[in-house]
Amino acid sequence: MKFEPKDRRKLADAALGRIPCDLAIRNVKLVNVLTGEIYPAEVGILDGFIACVSADPDGSGAAFSIEAAGEYDGRGEFLLPGFIDAHVHIESSMVTPANMAAAVVPQGTTTIITDPHEAANVGGIEAVRYMIDAARDLPLRVYVLAPSCVPAVPGLEYAGAYFGPAEMDAMLDMDSVPGIAEIMDYAGVLDHSERMEGILEAGRRRGVFLQGHAPFLSGRRLNGYIASGIESDHESRTAAEAREKMRLGMFLDAREGSVSTNIETLVGAVKNFPSLANLTLCTDDREPEDLLTQGHMNYVVSRAVKAGLSPVQAITCGTLNVARELGLRNLGAVAPGWAADLQIVPDISEPKARAVFFGGELVAENGELVVPLPVRNFAQEHRNTVNVKVPDMDELRIKATGERARIRIVVYDSPQSSFTRIVEEEVPVKDGFLDLSSDPDLMFAAVINRHGRGNLAVAVVRGFGAREGAVASTVAHDSHNLAIVYDRPENALVAIKTLTDSGGGHCAVRNGTVTGHLPLPIFGLLSPLPCGPLVRQVNAMKEALRSLGVNTKNPVMRIVSITLPVIPEGKITDLGIVDVNAQKIVPLFVE
Amino acid sequence: MKFEPKDRRKLADAALGRIPCDLAIRNVKLVNVLTGEIYPAEVGILDGFIACVSADPDGSGAAFSIEAAGEYDGRGEFLLPGFIDAHVHIESSMVTPANMAAAVVPQGTTTIITDPHEAANVGGIEAVRYMIDAARDLPLRVYVLAPSCVPAVPGLEYAGAYFGPAEMDAMLDMDSVPGIAEIMDYAGVLDHSERMEGILEAGRRRGVFLQGHAPFLSGRRLNGYIASGIESDHESRTAAEAREKMRLGMFLDAREGSVSTNIETLVGAVKNFPSLANLTLCTDDREPEDLLTQGHMNYVVSRAVKAGLSPVQAITCGTLNVARELGLRNLGAVAPGWAADLQIVPDISEPKARAVFFGGELVAENGELVVPLPVRNFAQEHRNTVNVKVPDMDELRIKATGERARIRIVVYDSPQSSFTRIVEEEVPVKDGFLDLSSDPDLMFAAVINRHGRGNLAVAVVRGFGAREGAVASTVAHDSHNLAIVYDRPENALVAIKTLTDSGGGHCAVRNGTVTGHLPLPIFGLLSPLPCGPLVRQVNAMKEALRSLGVNTKNPVMRIVSITLPVIPEGKITDLGIVDVNAQKIVPLFVE
Repeated sequence: MKFEPKDRRKLADAALGRIPCDLAIRNVKLVNVLTGEIYPAEVGILDGFIACVSADPDGSGAAFSIEAAGEYDGRGEFLLPGFIDAHVHIESSMVTPANMAAAVVPQGTTTIITDPHEAANVGGIEAVRYMIDAARDLPLRVYVLAPSCVPAVPGLEYAGAYFGPAEMDAMLDMDSVPGIAEIMDYAGVLDHSERMEGILEAGRRRGVFLQGHAPFLSGRRLNGYIASGIESDHESRTAAEAREKMRLGMFLDAREGSVSTNIETLVGAVKNFPSLANLTLCTDDREPEDLLTQGHMNYVVSRAVKAGLSPVQAITCGTLNVARELGLRNLGAVAPGWAADLQIVPDISEPKARAVFFGGELVAENGELVVPLPVRNFAQEHRNTVNVKVPDMDELRIKATGERARIRIVVYDSPQSSFTRIVEEEVPVKDGFLDLSSDPDLMFAAVINRHGRGNLAVAVVRGFGAREGAVASTVAHDSHNLAIVYDRPENALVAIKTLTDSGGGHCAVRNGTVTGHLPLPIFGLLSPLPCGPLVRQVNAMKEALRSLGVNTKNPVMRIVSITLPVIPEGKITDLGIVDVNAQKIVPLFVE
Repeated sequence: MKFEPKDRRKLADAALGRIPCDLAIRNVKLVNVLTGEIYPAEVGILDGFIACVSADPDGSGAAFSIEAAGEYDGRGEFLLPGFIDAHVHIESSMVTPANMAAAVVPQGTTTIITDPHEAANVGGIEAVRYMIDAARDLPLRVYVLAPSCVPAVPGLEYAGAYFGPAEMDAMLDMDSVPGIAEIMDYAGVLDHSERMEGILEAGRRRGVFLQGHAPFLSGRRLNGYIASGIESDHESRTAAEAREKMRLGMFLDAREGSVSTNIETLVGAVKNFPSLANLTLCTDDREPEDLLTQGHMNYVVSRAVKAGLSPVQAITCGTLNVARELGLRNLGAVAPGWAADLQIVPDISEPKARAVFFGGELVAENGELVVPLPVRNFAQEHRNTVNVKVPDMDELRIKATGERARIRIVVYDSPQSSFTRIVEEEVPVKDGFLDLSSDPDLMFAAVINRHGRGNLAVAVVRGFGAREGAVASTVAHDSHNLAIVYDRPENALVAIKTLTDSGGGHCAVRNGTVTGHLPLPIFGLLSPLPCGPLVRQVNAMKEALRSLGVNTKNPVMRIVSITLPVIPEGKITDLGIVDVNAQKIVPLFVE
């Protein structure tokens, strides 16, 4: 895809000095990611595109004066292209696209490549369309890829949608969908499952970008995955993985997320390659607090510099290389005819934008947006997606006979790890129901389908963290059903009602009283609030969870992976206990 | 454009070892242009694409065994992608596409980006179609760009065709036309001439590659040219030009042709740029003898190494970078899913292919094709395009009155240079015609329209070289009319008849006898012969020309630029004497 100025003739006229530019940025040191150089320059902008760059680093007389209606004084600081995030889930920051823009644009990010698969698991194609629509007219280019794995693991859970080849066709025919998002089901790819082959074919037929997701794949299997047409990976964690993937032609999207922080290892692994053209940077998942305190792509770039790249190399990886990865021409560098997405930073080792220009317009200065975001109303933002049948008391307990019952319990390895095992234990039975009251480390865990199916499953967990009350969330990867961990059904019901009434989010209950509530009414995943106030709510929520005993680094993240049937070994979905290794549902009671 | 294997599933199966590859290339040092590294590897190929690359440079255990129906032993030599020529006119080598393939493929070139504008000036769109058709099924990928400047300078000459926006549309809708060829009329671009704007718009609308041609443009004008959407340049001759163009985002197609040899200067100018991603290599024009003796892209690469690039850098510039310039994905590197266009060379500083693979098939070994070229018959190869009205004796003389006449004479600066001036001189008149017999340095020069218009112009040249007889050619840039330099009409007529009968080419006549004849019956530009026998004919032709007094380095090239109205200062077309600086026709007789 090429960015085309609407009138090339006018753009040339501005370069030729026949008409004034809209804006001249003067007195800057240009970071030229095309040659890797830095030199003084002036840049003329018209209609959102760069018309001309006047510079004469060699003293050969190539510079010329730029006339313009407006001027911006760069104060001798560095001018670089706006950052491009190669892979990010907006949902991980729990904000709308507009509030994502408000958070990241002042930090120098002007384009993101996003995978809306969390929202899609809840809202299906309409959620993808919402992400595209809600991203329009922002001071941020948002390229929405078509989610490939909705739901992540069909058969082990019910999500709000199912994407097969037909849905993929529909999404790839939408405006500004330049490819297929992280193709996580590598087993399906390698085994040519009917669903994955159909999805891949929809992409191949159109020649679009196929974004990968291939943790730990190596050798033969990695070759097979790449031979299938998949072009990138952001899941590398080891030096060996990084080197092998780049050597085999993948774009290596080196990631620095809130949880997965891989830059140091990956950059260290490949920094001495003579060519880094296929090295790109991404965030994948950033918690809103990290967005505000550490930053976005500017932080990733600074981490890459610390890991051994030169500042210009790191900037190139976070701009031009990503544009080339996506096949976006005229984006990610400062040259005539390129999109005028620019930033001025005082320090290229730790870039903090003093000014950000989007499509030639000054949109942020000194960390603040200086343009209003469009105020628009989306039906999707007001639809309550928590479509659950509120269970009765008995449905939240587990019927049993005799005095003790032998059951499968999902046991956490440690208070920090999300890894679990399935352990068989005997628990007491009282009045016809399992009785966990004698062991505060045991809690009930219920997953209620919230996409209108009416089904639920109840199991038992050990070592979750909370030792009383109820913890509930509609953020529960990847199907985002309603998950509740609780001591007694009374507490669970309060949490369930709170979340069904508020359209989803997180909730903590103690002694029948709500002690924490983080409303995420959009798809049960996103807040309507901007990052600042949202972070205050998140922090209050964390406190409430800690006081129930959830002491993971980020207590809000504890419950969201209890349902994720790709993390070993035992998870709970709306269909029951999943033996992740066997990829099947196993009964609660041991026969 | 993405190269897509016909069955990705099978390709993945071959990588996974479920089915054997067609071919395994073993025992090679892989030149990985994606990372810039060299390391031992094995490559598996299926259906023309690379299925897998097994290597383990780090000793991490990533290598695996490749099963294959066939094997090729690389003997420990280097495996690299086939070369890609960023810009070449096949017509300059005077051979058909098939014979071009026969000459360059054994030297490791597997893709060329060609501009058929010489043939197009003669045969119009049908000639472009011929180039596309004749290139099909060769062991060489030929990307034919749509010629932008046919004729080069409308109004100063008549060519065999006129390409405006409608013709551009027609060509860009043809198969495998990935863009517009060298946009030479930069004045038309900068002044928004209706023709050039229409042509550019046809390209912009489709988002295709716009190949540039911008000698000496700098500063404002270069910015304006680039802002018009033009992406490359192969006309740089100075270090300053090269640096300025790369900095402004152009792909710099550094050229090493038979006449223009720019590699040393240009590579020297940019070799210390931290990024060379936009540096590519091309030949532009190669005489057939140079193709055979020096080589093709392998020679350009060796020149780039001598000029200071590392061998891997030079190879990258002559492979991957060109593919990226054209937006061709999966071409120009050795990785799973990429086209299996490969070569094995013993020495990467002076690459001479020991083996060349095209689409996975061994097509050349030790400098010789090992596959037959397709034998096909094209009507265009048998059409006599020399459509002239043979003039009578008097038309080849210049009528004048009185005893002396003051005329404008086209005077060569030197025996080697193609630069000329227009000088006013008095010449004798005898029997009602100009009489040049007293000054053997003066010759008549006639240009006869050979595209059926019937017009001709006769002028006088000084210092051409030949001092007797007649020199004639249907290769006469860019309209390729029939040009004849001669002492007497009798000699001219013999040459004219020889060329009209043979469908064009070069001819030398002395005392009414043909002393040299190089038949170029295809468009009057190309020989049906392969390079080897053609070179013998060319050398005989050169000898014949030398014996008439033409002592330029390449005597065959002397006449071909006499008509080219973009080289200063005086040229002769079928419309008369062109004052190149004024870009207008001037009268022979001084008033």
